[in-house]
Amino acid sequence: MNKTLGEIASFLLGKVIGDPQVVISDVRGIDEAGKGDLTFIANPKYMKALETTKASAILVSPQIEKIDRNLIVVDDPYIALGRVLGLFYPEDRDTPRISAETFIEEGAIVSRDAHVYPGVYIGREARVEQGVILYPGVYIGRRVVIGEDSILYPNVVVSRRCIIGKRVILHAGVVVGSDGFGFARPALENIKIPQVGFVQIDDDVEVGANTTIDRGTIEKTWIQKGVKIDNLVQVAHNVVIGEYSVIVSQVGISGSTRLGKGVILGGQAGLVGHIDLGDHVMVGAQSGVHDDVPANQVVSGYPHLPHRQWLRVQACVSQLPEMRKNVAAMLKRLEKLERDKKNKTHSTKS
Amino acid sequence: MNKTLGEIASFLLGKVIGDPQVVISDVRGIDEAGKGDLTFIANPKYMKALETTKASAILVSPQIEKIDRNLIVVDDPYIALGRVLGLFYPEDRDTPRISAETFIEEGAIVSRDAHVYPGVYIGREARVEQGVILYPGVYIGRRVVIGEDSILYPNVVVSRRCIIGKRVILHAGVVVGSDGFGFARPALENIKIPQVGFVQIDDDVEVGANTTIDRGTIEKTWIQKGVKIDNLVQVAHNVVIGEYSVIVSQVGISGSTRLGKGVILGGQAGLVGHIDLGDHVMVGAQSGVHDDVPANQVVSGYPHLPHRQWLRVQACVSQLPEMRKNVAAMLKRLEKLERDKKNKTHSTKS
Amino acid sequence: MNKTLGEIASFLLGKVIGDPQVVISDVRGIDEAGKGDLTFIANPKYMKALETTKASAILVSPQIEKIDRNLIVVDDPYIALGRVLGLFYPEDRDTPRISAETFIEEGAIVSRDAHVYPGVYIGREARVEQGVILYPGVYIGRRVVIGEDSILYPNVVVSRRCIIGKRVILHAGVVVGSDGFGFARPALENIKIPQVGFVQIDDDVEVGANTTIDRGTIEKTWIQKGVKIDNLVQVAHNVVIGEYSVIVSQVGISGSTRLGKGVILGGQAGLVGHIDLGDHVMVGAQSGVHDDVPANQVVSGYPHLPHRQWLRVQACVSQLPEMRKNVAAMLKRLEKLERDKKNKTHSTKS
Repeated sequence: MNKTLGEIASFLLGKVIGDPQVVISDVRGIDEAGKGDLTFIANPKYMKALETTKASAILVSPQIEKIDRNLIVVDDPYIALGRVLGLFYPEDRDTPRISAETFIEEGAIVSRDAHVYPGVYIGREARVEQGVILYPGVYIGRRVVIGEDSILYPNVVVSRRCIIGKRVILHAGVVVGSDGFGFARPALENIKIPQVGFVQIDDDVEVGANTTIDRGTIEKTWIQKGVKIDNLVQVAHNVVIGEYSVIVSQVGISGSTRLGKGVILGGQAGLVGHIDLGDHVMVGAQSGVHDDVPANQVVSGYPHLPHRQWLRVQACVSQLPEMRKNVAAMLKRLEKLERDKKNKTHSTKS
Repeated sequence: MNKTLGEIASFLLGKVIGDPQVVISDVRGIDEAGKGDLTFIANPKYMKALETTKASAILVSPQIEKIDRNLIVVDDPYIALGRVLGLFYPEDRDTPRISAETFIEEGAIVSRDAHVYPGVYIGREARVEQGVILYPGVYIGRRVVIGEDSILYPNVVVSRRCIIGKRVILHAGVVVGSDGFGFARPALENIKIPQVGFVQIDDDVEVGANTTIDRGTIEKTWIQKGVKIDNLVQVAHNVVIGEYSVIVSQVGISGSTRLGKGVILGGQAGLVGHIDLGDHVMVGAQSGVHDDVPANQVVSGYPHLPHRQWLRVQACVSQLPEMRKNVAAMLKRLEKLERDKKNKTHSTKS
Repeated sequence: MNKTLGEIASFLLGKVIGDPQVVISDVRGIDEAGKGDLTFIANPKYMKALETTKASAILVSPQIEKIDRNLIVVDDPYIALGRVLGLFYPEDRDTPRISAETFIEEGAIVSRDAHVYPGVYIGREARVEQGVILYPGVYIGRRVVIGEDSILYPNVVVSRRCIIGKRVILHAGVVVGSDGFGFARPALENIKIPQVGFVQIDDDVEVGANTTIDRGTIEKTWIQKGVKIDNLVQVAHNVVIGEYSVIVSQVGISGSTRLGKGVILGGQAGLVGHIDLGDHVMVGAQSGVHDDVPANQVVSGYPHLPHRQWLRVQACVSQLPEMRKNVAAMLKRLEKLERDKKNKTHSTKS
């Protein structure tokens, strides 16, 4: 696909600096880009590459003014990158059809406008809406609902009675609706508590590869609108994740914990069960959160602390060996003072 | 399903306080329950909800005496909840049948009383016992044994020669019998050591979604009777997990490590290889265990410490910035004493 | 299979001590081995078992000289073990054939010498080379290349346009080429950035069960020659892992981070995005790496420190309660000195 810089700028509602007639045929990373490529700067860490990139043009924010380059200036180059990638790499979609080599139980309702690949299994009373794509190896349990335009990549499993909204993306290997981990008399008898609830995933949610979301014990595990979950995340039974929250890879959220709106959990963070995180809480990577966190707080560490306090604590921790040496030296000086005083007292007394 | 409170109490061997004629038609969480619902209190954290719940009756332990409510009093409300959920939500099982659309290699033996869904693959010389349910996408390798009444959810993989006991539950995406991670000259040549052992899973084990259990190098990786493993756990080659142990989500157990009976590993904990944990050891969430732990100990932290010591240490850690300030202030006072003494000596001498 | 000790020694280019005519019929672990078995000592931790093992012969390194045993002495007993396991447990391979029950889109090219099991899906324009084995449930996206002699275990997913080299092993449930986790205006709007890059996996790489490797945003995520990745590892978009690196289970590598050659990452370690680790860096288990690490460094902890410094720091951390007590005691002694001085001054003055 060939577009002039001017055409792309106008598509992005951006401003051209330099030659609007330059022809752009691809979008590439700043190190890899060459003649005919548009590239971008979204992370200041790569600013130096502005000098060396061989790209024909660069998507930048208004902060950057480099007149010896062809630029498109936009408010948010990362958003603009997303749009221009969508332009140059349109999705490669087939005409929807339901393969004859699927296994559909009686009483399942599959829209004629859904695309069901071979090797898909759809259980009784399930409903698959229009525009849905079910890739090979997908398993849809009984009474499941898959909302319009959702995409389930290969080998995704959605167990009985779970409800998936519209425009949801479940990447390969995701498991929705496995049993929660509930046992009475743990480590003695491990008596299984039946897990009879379900999972509700609202519109516009995306879930990363091999992530697992357990069904509620009785009620629902609930992933609200616009939430994005990365790969290999564990969401336990009865958890609620508020709208537009972002859960980075390998996070674990224990049972019955509730997240407000717009919460961000860094990679590998762990949350104990039965706690509440307020709206817009941010949790640092690898942190361990053991208690409620009020709205808008940033916390880090294991066990977690307010982020600034944690930074101060960590600064001290790394200097502990020196502090210990200092304390030992102080002790010696203190002992000397005491000795001197005692000697003096003695000498005075004698 | 409708039952009177008296009927349910008698099924649970519990005692009714209030009206035994109240009709119960469902079991629900304490916040969600309404008229006709039975609810429960198993975690003291939710005690306050006793005042506000709209449930018609509540399952409680003998500690709770609230006369203005219909109650069933039982020794362990969580166990009772499990039983009553089993009553109100009986499992929805089909008549067993072996789908014509499975792939069964010659020489595999599949019980007529097993239920094999379409899209299952069963290798040569494998044996699938009666009452087993194999959901779509399950792969059973050669010479594998699946014991009576075990359930393998969709897309479970059990590789060659692994042995699964009776009443075992493997949730969706579980991998049993992948190669252990064994390489000679690591980071130089990475020479693969063939992994020729197997995995043995004993009766009544349950394994969570997308968990991986590697085969032994030569001998077996062994999950003993009644063990419960949560989602996304890693069990490396040659590991032994003792009876009734409980392994919470995202734990990693390195090669050749052995756990006694009734061990509990908190979420995201990591164990190095070649160590022994005694019976009934408890490991806190996110802990890193680098050495043997004797029976009945509770350990936490990274690197791990006895739990009480870890609590004391953490209390100090969070106050380090203050301690550092105090030490700096002490140093000044010490220096002042030294200066004063020196001046005095000087003045005395002069 | 029966071999004399002499035959095995000659196959391993090792030296027999004791009786070269002893007949060996199996290879077993040191505790389990009995008459007719060869065993081995590769980890000094198991040296004591040399006294008690019932094995007929033992593979050892030149350091060990025990004359009352039949030994094969080799430079590296672990490498030798690998070779002898290959001898006694040859792989059980079928004649390659392409099952009629696979789903191959038009325009895919599958070598006649590949082995494609039932239930495999191969997309348009994909290429599967000779000697490849695709187990049931494998999904190969469009324009994917699978190089010679690679093995994809059951339910592996390789999405569109990813490139897999020769002799690559992908264990069950691996996902290659899921979308990277890229969203503009995170936690506010979560605007998806299309992920149009791919994954390139070079020759002789092995990837553990249920590991996930995301496609590059625009360019490639790149796993170089000979890299070994364990189970449940997360590799984010645009990551580069240098040749022969070793990534232990449950590690998470964030986006655009680059590892040099021969890097070793311990289990559950986490790396933030956009950092560089030099050649032969070693990262301790559960560490959190937040910044570049120069070549050949060993780092540990969260946040990471040079390993030796971390050991010193940890030694101090565990003794913090004592240090705190000492500091408190010093403060009292200091206060006493100050009081005494003040009193003296007073008494002098008075």
